[in-house]
Amino acid sequence: MGRRTYCLILQYDGSRYKGWQRLPGTAQTVQGRVEAALSEIFAEPVEIHGSGRTDAGVHALGQTVSFTAPELPLNKILPRLRHLLPRDIGAVSLRYAPERFHARLCAVEKTYVYRLWNSEKPDVFGRHYRTRFPRPLDEEKMRQAASHFFGTHDFLAFCSNKQFKKSSVRTLRRLELIREGEELRFELTADGFLYNMVRIIVGTLLEVGLGQREPECIPELLCSRQRSLAGETAAPEGLCLLEVRYDEKSLPPAKVCDMIG
Amino acid sequence: MGRRTYCLILQYDGSRYKGWQRLPGTAQTVQGRVEAALSEIFAEPVEIHGSGRTDAGVHALGQTVSFTAPELPLNKILPRLRHLLPRDIGAVSLRYAPERFHARLCAVEKTYVYRLWNSEKPDVFGRHYRTRFPRPLDEEKMRQAASHFFGTHDFLAFCSNKQFKKSSVRTLRRLELIREGEELRFELTADGFLYNMVRIIVGTLLEVGLGQREPECIPELLCSRQRSLAGETAAPEGLCLLEVRYDEKSLPPAKVCDMIG
Repeated sequence: MGRRTYCLILQYDGSRYKGWQRLPGTAQTVQGRVEAALSEIFAEPVEIHGSGRTDAGVHALGQTVSFTAPELPLNKILPRLRHLLPRDIGAVSLRYAPERFHARLCAVEKTYVYRLWNSEKPDVFGRHYRTRFPRPLDEEKMRQAASHFFGTHDFLAFCSNKQFKKSSVRTLRRLELIREGEELRFELTADGFLYNMVRIIVGTLLEVGLGQREPECIPELLCSRQRSLAGETAAPEGLCLLEVRYDEKSLPPAKVCDMIG
Repeated sequence: MGRRTYCLILQYDGSRYKGWQRLPGTAQTVQGRVEAALSEIFAEPVEIHGSGRTDAGVHALGQTVSFTAPELPLNKILPRLRHLLPRDIGAVSLRYAPERFHARLCAVEKTYVYRLWNSEKPDVFGRHYRTRFPRPLDEEKMRQAASHFFGTHDFLAFCSNKQFKKSSVRTLRRLELIREGEELRFELTADGFLYNMVRIIVGTLLEVGLGQREPECIPELLCSRQRSLAGETAAPEGLCLLEVRYDEKSLPPAKVCDMIG
């Protein structure tokens, strides 16, 4: 039987999980759960590669995953996978990918959203997906501060990994603040994100919004490359990986028969 | 210290609870939790009256509650109550009500919504608030069937309570089926609902949608007054109490100083 490279889109509610990455001694990681299900379907150990790790409590609407496994019809895999996965992990779609496709190495752009519930009012139905932040915020100043993040910078000051050795230069293509009623939402698109980068950017913008920092501090912070000078890491539950993009070379548009969702 | 009648609007996620009604031997009822919080605030036992009981797993966006307690400023009560309640029960607003206001006895109209996830696709973020129902449905027939429920009927065939002694005549003012993507939503407004009435109506409409019954069976069913002839009771998680209305005599519009939310 031939082998294939598959591309799988997942959504998950991260509330119950110790993050994306498989950990010894616990089944409570998203990767662990998905690998267990796929290994059962293919009757052999399947190792998957996510586009990136998400932390404990962080959610995804469009986490992208690659793996290689024996060739099976997609409509034999996807319904089975949906049946085996717990209800807080969902298989959105499945397709055959080019042999060398790798969800992390080939990713060219990611979009995250960070949701705040900016009100004293209760947020019963959004409580797992929005971070409660009842204090009033100066949004104008936050937008000014946000504008300084656009473009290509060394984001080392916005990275929790102290041993980070590779390039910490990233290009932020979009950082929008969107107000909808009690919700204040941050949408960020970049060619890649460092560990905790979204949450530290949001944490820093919140300190600007509270008047504890000026918008003009951002360029200095970026230049400092010192994590200790940036703001706090915002709580995980407001964060959600929305989408991962690939270029057509690594993941050409699928033919109808090569995709199911 | 004088006493007041209060009117409190609650929202809750019913997933974790054994329903609305206080039960001996468990704290896991919504009424039990709210009474415990209010009793702590007023330093005396407080008994509350909901507009109606919701079952285990059923949610509310606008459950309305009345109680009498010592007179305290609203802004001393509401923040305290929000702090004491668990995150899946939210106090939306609080006001002083006329002395004789009673949330159940004075209610003149209620609106419920029942949400279905009508797809094979996963519904990770709605899984507690929509009932999964992947089979295809004939919506045109369901709408025809729904039209037979309008108006004033004896709904005894759509009531789970076998010992129901009082009048089972109710007036259904609205029953709309709304399709939004994978979601099929039923919105029902009536002067009152019998025990499980919404869930049995929805369960019966689903059987029509599957072709197991004809739309024209509804008038006969209503006339039969026999629960055993109607459809199954749909699962609780899709149901949510949206709103309870009162007339101006029992609950006049609140002055600004008499309401907080």
